[in-house]
Amino acid sequence: MIEALLAQGSLVGASGKVAPISRIVATDILVEPTGLPADERVSYRGGDISDPEFVALLFADNPESVFHLAALVSGGAEQDFDAGMRANLTGTIHLLEAARRTGGCPRFVFTSSIATYGGDLPEIVSDEYHITPESSYGVQKAIGELLVNDYTRKGFINGRSLRLPIIAVRPGGANTAASSWASAIIREPLNGVDYACPVAPEDRGFVLSPLKAIEGLIVGHDAPDEAWGRNRSVMMAGLSCTAKDLVDALARVAGTPVANRVRWQPDPFVRGIVTTWPTQFSLRKASRIGLEADASIDDIVIQYMGDGC
Amino acid sequence: MIEALLAQGSLVGASGKVAPISRIVATDILVEPTGLPADERVSYRGGDISDPEFVALLFADNPESVFHLAALVSGGAEQDFDAGMRANLTGTIHLLEAARRTGGCPRFVFTSSIATYGGDLPEIVSDEYHITPESSYGVQKAIGELLVNDYTRKGFINGRSLRLPIIAVRPGGANTAASSWASAIIREPLNGVDYACPVAPEDRGFVLSPLKAIEGLIVGHDAPDEAWGRNRSVMMAGLSCTAKDLVDALARVAGTPVANRVRWQPDPFVRGIVTTWPTQFSLRKASRIGLEADASIDDIVIQYMGDGC
Repeated sequence: MIEALLAQGSLVGASGKVAPISRIVATDILVEPTGLPADERVSYRGGDISDPEFVALLFADNPESVFHLAALVSGGAEQDFDAGMRANLTGTIHLLEAARRTGGCPRFVFTSSIATYGGDLPEIVSDEYHITPESSYGVQKAIGELLVNDYTRKGFINGRSLRLPIIAVRPGGANTAASSWASAIIREPLNGVDYACPVAPEDRGFVLSPLKAIEGLIVGHDAPDEAWGRNRSVMMAGLSCTAKDLVDALARVAGTPVANRVRWQPDPFVRGIVTTWPTQFSLRKASRIGLEADASIDDIVIQYMGDGC
Repeated sequence: MIEALLAQGSLVGASGKVAPISRIVATDILVEPTGLPADERVSYRGGDISDPEFVALLFADNPESVFHLAALVSGGAEQDFDAGMRANLTGTIHLLEAARRTGGCPRFVFTSSIATYGGDLPEIVSDEYHITPESSYGVQKAIGELLVNDYTRKGFINGRSLRLPIIAVRPGGANTAASSWASAIIREPLNGVDYACPVAPEDRGFVLSPLKAIEGLIVGHDAPDEAWGRNRSVMMAGLSCTAKDLVDALARVAGTPVANRVRWQPDPFVRGIVTTWPTQFSLRKASRIGLEADASIDDIVIQYMGDGC
C-alpha cells in the first residue's frame, strides 16, 4: 500500500485537487515495523488503535488522507468476540473521532469486507441488497460503514468504504482470516509446502489480488464525491471462482506437481464462515467508481510468483 | 408499555415457555418516575444507560426479558451528535453487555425505527432492501440492530429489533423527534391549542398508534425464533398517510372547527429528515411475526380521544 502511494506520489487532497504526498505515517500493532519502504517521507508509529491516546498521537500532524486497513480479521473476531469489538468497532470509532478533530474533513478510506454479506442471498447480489452479516467481523465492518456514512454526511470526514473481496494471494503466513485458504492454496505449494485446504473443491470465493485491491483503495480515495453518491459503501470488483479453479490455475501456471501439493481437508468452522459469503455481484457502483478486477485467475497466480515467492 | 405487560400478566420466558411476570424494573433518565402504575410488581430506577455501572444495577436481578425503548430521538441526535452516540450507541452496547452477563440468554426487544431507511428508495420497500439512514439517529438504530443480530447469533441474548413507524398520537408534549408533527397535528387541536405544522400537507408518513406499537413489541417478544429467522430485524406494520389525511380524519371524528386549528408552516430542518423516510413497505416479515397496523386513521384519532385527551 505504502509502495503504491509512493509510486503514485500524489493524492486528491481535501480540497478536491491533486497534491503531492509529503508524508506518510504508517501504523500497526507491532512496536517495530516490518518491510517498510526506505523513504524519507515514511515514518512509523506502533500501537493499538483501541487506545484513544495512541490514536491522538497518530493524528498529531492533521493528515489530509486516512487509509484504515487495521482489523482483527474474520476467524479471530469470531473466536474472541471482545477483542474483535475492541479492534474493529472501538478502534474504528477512535480513528473517525481523530479524523473529525483535525477539522479538515480528511478523505477517509475504510476497508470493509465481503464478510458484511450473509444470510439468504440471491445468486447475484445487487448494490441495494441488505447487509445481514453472519460473523462478528462482518457485523463490526458493517457498523464501520454506517459510521463512515454518518461522519461524511455530518461533514466530519469525506469517507469511502470499500468492501474487499477475498484477497489472494496474500504474502507471508496465514492469519486468522477465514479466507486465508484462498491465499495458502496458491502460496504454500509454490513455496514447496503441502497444503491441507480447509474448504471443499466446489466451495466458491470472490477473489481479488493484493495489487488490484491496493489500486482500488487509491482509486476509491481519489474518485469524486459524485461517483460515490450519498451512500459511501461499495462492493469492490473481483473474480468468482471455486477452490478447484484456483488449483487448476496453479497447475496451468506452475505445473501439476506443484498443484498436487494441495489436498482437501474441509473444516466445518472455516466453511461455516466462508460459505455464507456471496460470490456474484452486479457491481454497478464499483464500475461507476472505476474499480477493476484482475483479468484472470492465472494472472493472480502469476502476480504472486513475480512478487512474493 | 408497563400497563400492557401487567394486563397480559405473562411473557414467553427464556426457556420458550409462557411464565408469569413476577417483577418489572422500569427505568428512564429521570430521577423520579412519572405515571408509573401502582403495582407491587413494578419498581423504578432512574439513571443514564451511558453509565455502565448504572446499567449493572438495573440488571442486578438477571431479568429474563428486556424491552429497550430508550433513545435520544431523531431531532435531538441530529442536533447533538455526541449526545446521540452516547445514548443510542454506547447506551445500547451497555444494555447488550449487561444482558449477556446474566448468562441466561434473555429475550431482548430493541426498538429500532423507520429512520433507519433513507437515500434513494423504491416506492414500496421490501424486507431485503438495504439500510442507508440519512440521520444520525437512524445510523445509531441501524448499528443497534446489527449488534442485536450478532449478540443473538453468538447466543448472548435472544434479540428482536422492531422498526417503529412514526408513532401517533404520542401523549404529553412534543419531544425532539422529527416525527412529533404527526402526533401534535392531532393532539394540539383536540386540546384546544392552535398548531403550526412543520411539514407540508402532501408530506406522507407511515404511522402506527401507541397501542398497536406496544402490542407489536410484546408480540415480537413472544413470537417463536422460527418466525424471526436468523435476521432479527423487522419493519413493523403501519398506515401510509399524508399530513392532510390526518387533518381530514380529525375533521371527521372531532369536527371541522377542531381541524381548523392546524395551519401549515413547513420547516426545512424537520422536512429534511422526515421526507427521507419511506412510506410504503411490503411487510411480509411483519405479517409472519403477527404484527398489525391500526384499522384506520380515524381509529388512531379515536384512540387518543378515549385515552389521552
